Amino acid sequence: MTSALFQLVTPAEALARLFERLPAPRAVERVGLTEAVGRWTAAPIAAPEPSPAFVRSAMDGYAVRAADTFGASEGLPAYLRVCGETPMGRAAELPVAPGEAQLIHTGGMLPPGADAVVMVEYTQPIDDDAIEVVRPAAPGANVVQAGEDLQPGDLVLPAGQRLRAQDAGVLAALGITEVEAAVRPRVGVLSSGDEIVPPQAAPGPGRVRDVNSTTLTALARAAGAEACAYGVAPDDRAELERRARAALAACDLLVISAGSSVSARDVTADVIAALGAPGVLAHGLAVKPGKPTIAALAGGTPVFGLPGNPVSAMVVFGLLVAPTIARLLGAPSVPEPRLTRARLTRNLSSQTGRLDFVPAALTRRGGEWWAEPVLGKSNLIATMVRASGMVRIPLDAGGAAEGAWVDVERF
Amino acid sequence: MTSALFQLVTPAEALARLFERLPAPRAVERVGLTEAVGRWTAAPIAAPEPSPAFVRSAMDGYAVRAADTFGASEGLPAYLRVCGETPMGRAAELPVAPGEAQLIHTGGMLPPGADAVVMVEYTQPIDDDAIEVVRPAAPGANVVQAGEDLQPGDLVLPAGQRLRAQDAGVLAALGITEVEAAVRPRVGVLSSGDEIVPPQAAPGPGRVRDVNSTTLTALARAAGAEACAYGVAPDDRAELERRARAALAACDLLVISAGSSVSARDVTADVIAALGAPGVLAHGLAVKPGKPTIAALAGGTPVFGLPGNPVSAMVVFGLLVAPTIARLLGAPSVPEPRLTRARLTRNLSSQTGRLDFVPAALTRRGGEWWAEPVLGKSNLIATMVRASGMVRIPLDAGGAAEGAWVDVERF
Repeated sequence: MTSALFQLVTPAEALARLFERLPAPRAVERVGLTEAVGRWTAAPIAAPEPSPAFVRSAMDGYAVRAADTFGASEGLPAYLRVCGETPMGRAAELPVAPGEAQLIHTGGMLPPGADAVVMVEYTQPIDDDAIEVVRPAAPGANVVQAGEDLQPGDLVLPAGQRLRAQDAGVLAALGITEVEAAVRPRVGVLSSGDEIVPPQAAPGPGRVRDVNSTTLTALARAAGAEACAYGVAPDDRAELERRARAALAACDLLVISAGSSVSARDVTADVIAALGAPGVLAHGLAVKPGKPTIAALAGGTPVFGLPGNPVSAMVVFGLLVAPTIARLLGAPSVPEPRLTRARLTRNLSSQTGRLDFVPAALTRRGGEWWAEPVLGKSNLIATMVRASGMVRIPLDAGGAAEGAWVDVERF
Repeated sequence: MTSALFQLVTPAEALARLFERLPAPRAVERVGLTEAVGRWTAAPIAAPEPSPAFVRSAMDGYAVRAADTFGASEGLPAYLRVCGETPMGRAAELPVAPGEAQLIHTGGMLPPGADAVVMVEYTQPIDDDAIEVVRPAAPGANVVQAGEDLQPGDLVLPAGQRLRAQDAGVLAALGITEVEAAVRPRVGVLSSGDEIVPPQAAPGPGRVRDVNSTTLTALARAAGAEACAYGVAPDDRAELERRARAALAACDLLVISAGSSVSARDVTADVIAALGAPGVLAHGLAVKPGKPTIAALAGGTPVFGLPGNPVSAMVVFGLLVAPTIARLLGAPSVPEPRLTRARLTRNLSSQTGRLDFVPAALTRRGGEWWAEPVLGKSNLIATMVRASGMVRIPLDAGGAAEGAWVDVERF
């Protein structure tokens, strides 16, 4: 390890060092559409057939020969004889002869002879057998041609696209009911610290319950991984390494949250460095809170050492671990956080060259969001329960003034 | 049914009619913290014990008697004898006598005699046994008092709060590992239409595959429900009613997407009206797309008739069905959509008194998001795959001009 590793790096730099060394794409599996939503396509998906497969009406109205409507107006309507109704869900066989119109519904197949649809709003019934048309329809009006949407072989979704509900719907329309996606990575979460006991335990004197197993497991699931908590290890190098190796053997990504003492962090750093090559890629993040962070790769498996403070651990999870999970799931780039613009209720100072996150409560005043920083002593309830998001003070901003617009990452 | 039911209503009015008639709260279950994330608390949660349980150091530094540091400065430091190190995870038993300092880590228990912590940054080692302190520490400095965060009985989370990862973390810290939450509602999704075949089937002439089962099932899951697709029913009143009743018997909420012809919509409306009292509460939504929507309550179970068009069905799902799922999960109010502010690339017209949604692709120009409306023929690929969200034109806006800021609901 060179000393460069121990200079503070930006989250982008830490991810770049990690991603350029990650092994080739992971195993893919075929999954049903509902299970595929939220995951990234592992291969491009082409249309197997034209869409639509037949000429369809895009409106409720009458299938006509466009030429029969040319020149039609309110003052001089075209009179057409109604030749029945186009069936839904069957081939339209009854032709439309010159001077005729056939009642048709949205999605109905255009009958032979017809080349346009007149919207029902532009027609007027004369009697059971005839209508007036008060506007002309151009050939192809209100009609979707076969293959107009997609031709066989057209790209529907590129590889590396995150599937949303409607993308799955489009695949269903094309008869594609399974998708290739990377197998969900298994994320191991290991807490450490002599002062930490599991949430179920009664902490003795000087001890506190483990928070990070709960928060980080929940965040890993929300990021699309399978998550498994590996309990709490003591600040003992041999025991922590044994527990870390056991988790590593079963996981595709390992997160260790360090004990809060300096020596505990040193133990964690030593253990992570020993887990496998290439080892530590970044040690120290130019982020507040989140500086005592380690990003490493051990035999192809990403390993993160996160700060023990629950708020810091959550911040770094969002900056490094969630994007790495997305990468393992096939995301081609780091997903952009969805930021809410809000105005600050007070000045915030920040150090240039450092990305700062400040917990804040969002309130709506008129049409604007205002972010009220939750300051004071680090306090679980105030910073974690009352805050509705984290104000992001960019790397080179050097703070933000009261009333300034800032980006808030909402929880 | 009165004729008022068939006037167009806003989504808020439709939900109000439904919610005021919904039966009392649903069954609750006790669930583990990870499973509880994303769900709403069914009861207020109080702190069972003080937090922190003991006086803790908030910093890495030295536990001292504050009085020993009064007046200390760079020019005139206070000299203190180091009396060992406070252990992590055990009771601090070694006292700090006058003139002494004890090495302490963040989260360590304050030793007897000490009443403040001096940050390590403000100390200088003299030798192995002594330090200089260059800044005074007030009593209580860098210390979190027992119960400072929470006293026993303090409210941690009110009822009806949606649990986020950090809220679950706070509960873990307090030893609360299970939460009462409403049982996940079971949402049935039934498609109808003579022209619709299941996604697995080869559509014959004039037929298309079912899209809504896939999209609406995915959206229901994302909203926190268990979702079950009940296939495709024909536009036959008796058969649709039979299928709807079967789904209704097994579900807490039923969504029927209508066939696209007027007669199919009439059949759907008749069936929904017949399912049980009080029946149809709203028929026709002041929303585009989404007008042909039905909201009903049948023997305590919400039933929605959604338009057959997949984009319309998704819009109405977001406006009515997702909030109803949230309500069944215990949400006290309609969750606010997370909107992205963007500027329009072109004029959009809209009818006053109607909420309009226009699919749009979002692109970043400089620091601003721009929304490029996806217009033209309703086309699955363009509107569903290329769009990254829906521009929302409010009820009384009457459109929006090129360059205007609009709210976009991102997919």
